Amino acid sequence: MGSSNAFGWAATDTSGQLSPFHFSRRENEADDVTLKILFCGVCHSDLHTIKNDWGFTTYPVVPGHEIAGIVTKVGSNVTKFKEGDRVGVGVIVDSCKECECCQQDLENYCPRTVYTYNSPYKGTRTQGGYSDFVVVHQRFVLRFPDNLPLDAGAPLLCAGITVYSPMKYYGMTEPGKHLGVAGLGGLGHVAIKFGKAFGLKVTVISGSPNKEAEAIHTLGADSFLLSSDPERMKAAMGTMDYIISTISAVHPLAPLLGLLKLNGKLVNVGLPSKPLQLPIFPLVGGRKLIGGSNFGGLKETQEMLDFCAKHNITANIELIKMDEINTAIERLSKSDVKYRFVIDVANSLSSSNM
Amino acid sequence: MGSSNAFGWAATDTSGQLSPFHFSRRENEADDVTLKILFCGVCHSDLHTIKNDWGFTTYPVVPGHEIAGIVTKVGSNVTKFKEGDRVGVGVIVDSCKECECCQQDLENYCPRTVYTYNSPYKGTRTQGGYSDFVVVHQRFVLRFPDNLPLDAGAPLLCAGITVYSPMKYYGMTEPGKHLGVAGLGGLGHVAIKFGKAFGLKVTVISGSPNKEAEAIHTLGADSFLLSSDPERMKAAMGTMDYIISTISAVHPLAPLLGLLKLNGKLVNVGLPSKPLQLPIFPLVGGRKLIGGSNFGGLKETQEMLDFCAKHNITANIELIKMDEINTAIERLSKSDVKYRFVIDVANSLSSSNM
Repeated sequence: MGSSNAFGWAATDTSGQLSPFHFSRRENEADDVTLKILFCGVCHSDLHTIKNDWGFTTYPVVPGHEIAGIVTKVGSNVTKFKEGDRVGVGVIVDSCKECECCQQDLENYCPRTVYTYNSPYKGTRTQGGYSDFVVVHQRFVLRFPDNLPLDAGAPLLCAGITVYSPMKYYGMTEPGKHLGVAGLGGLGHVAIKFGKAFGLKVTVISGSPNKEAEAIHTLGADSFLLSSDPERMKAAMGTMDYIISTISAVHPLAPLLGLLKLNGKLVNVGLPSKPLQLPIFPLVGGRKLIGGSNFGGLKETQEMLDFCAKHNITANIELIKMDEINTAIERLSKSDVKYRFVIDVANSLSSSNM
Repeated sequence: MGSSNAFGWAATDTSGQLSPFHFSRRENEADDVTLKILFCGVCHSDLHTIKNDWGFTTYPVVPGHEIAGIVTKVGSNVTKFKEGDRVGVGVIVDSCKECECCQQDLENYCPRTVYTYNSPYKGTRTQGGYSDFVVVHQRFVLRFPDNLPLDAGAPLLCAGITVYSPMKYYGMTEPGKHLGVAGLGGLGHVAIKFGKAFGLKVTVISGSPNKEAEAIHTLGADSFLLSSDPERMKAAMGTMDYIISTISAVHPLAPLLGLLKLNGKLVNVGLPSKPLQLPIFPLVGGRKLIGGSNFGGLKETQEMLDFCAKHNITANIELIKMDEINTAIERLSKSDVKYRFVIDVANSLSSSNM
């Protein structure tokens, strides 16, 4: 494998279809880690980028920012990693490393963040993990603890940290407290697991009654609240300490705020494209807050992986072959996945690479 | 003065006019403090109640919940206060005293709070401080520190605690940080003073250019940001750590959120009657939060009065006579006051009481 000729699957237009794509990767430099990609999760952001939903996609684009693999080469300054190490790469591959954010291990909020795909970088553009290998500055490489599987662990690099970081930052970790998880997808199902690991009572809040049994019996939630049932919603008013909302669609905030107790915290990690209606009376009358959060810094992402290893937390995944990606993208757009597609990259990309 | 025959000024309909009114107060019981009212602040809530803006006014109503006076009688269980003490009464005069809120000194969030006026209570209704005396359970009586004047101190009992409490709760007190105060009225002008006492840099955010000089030279703000000037607003993006918004009108949140840095906090204490538009991207991208808060508990209100005495914080007031109240209410409705009307009750009510 030459270090400059890479191969993956790319979107070339807004059709939503991916196809095989040859491109160049930069050479491994002194601070770089090169990794052979074994697995890559399929995130909702991939879908948005492929279809140019956010309006800033440059084609062709190779998506994928939940990357797990094996180190094949390290630069001369790299001491933390060596060939053969099990590692991961998440949402970003570089930042300025000098600003206040970077100095506080909050590279995710650095204004000069370089995203793992679809970002301008060193005269070219980044391409993601639906591909055979990647070259990444060592600061942006995560270590997989020994007992954390690479396939079911890969989605933790985006879905996992995106819910873990706000739970820590907003103090949603006090044992015995009651957490609501609004929206049960890739992020929501991992939030349940973190909630249980923190010792919380966890209630899934969802408009899909058919998710109830699985939320409780498979994912370990303590209870299920059907958001479309006004009676049950009314009975649950003022019972929750925290809610983490993974809902990306435009939705009313008042019912969620109503579920919170005094001093309750509602954290949004979903990204509705339009403003939501915020009623002020419940905020004031119950000293409640609404906050946001955007994935996490590298130090905290490593902490999260270590936490997952310790508590046996992984994503529930459907492992697919590379050439099944277009079907998977289609199904993902209908939320028809339990709960994350992961591409078995190394075992299925090579055969396409003839 | 008989302990049951009271006299004050009441609103009797939605006209906004007050007129002299004779009514009964309950007798002083074992846990009660009776106080002769010397001064009473004129709060925006008084205005809303007089005009039944919130839809739950029962007439006749005597407004006033920024009450300062002298103890004239104490019940047999009262040990904290004695005749002649300088005391105050704020927004509430009773609560259940047993619930989780009350046990945590958060009587202000007790579901069975009794407001100082316009609340059902012991078979009758409470009447406020535009009157000659009041009988209050000792738990809801505050002590005025020796050097805190009763007239300019009275507004602290609502306007003061309403901004002090969230500044403490949301951690908006770290010296050197930058506080924005949105809206410069009764609450906003006291927020400036607290901000300076906490060691913050304070910027007033206002749409009224004529407030600039006074905000800086009289009230001690460090700078003034004209919210109607797009260039100045743009230049100020991402410069503030905290904003306390006292704006009661429906207003856009996006510009205020834009002024905040990473991890910035926007606290609303104003009560717009309709929901506000909440854009989610700035919340997520900057890990910002929006919170609410509703005045404060008794313990914290006492702490706030002690803090004000120590730092020489009082409200800037216009002292009026009781029979000037209708003009004052009219002016308040136009925000024509610097910055709080206080009624010189004892010196002007008696003459009307013939």
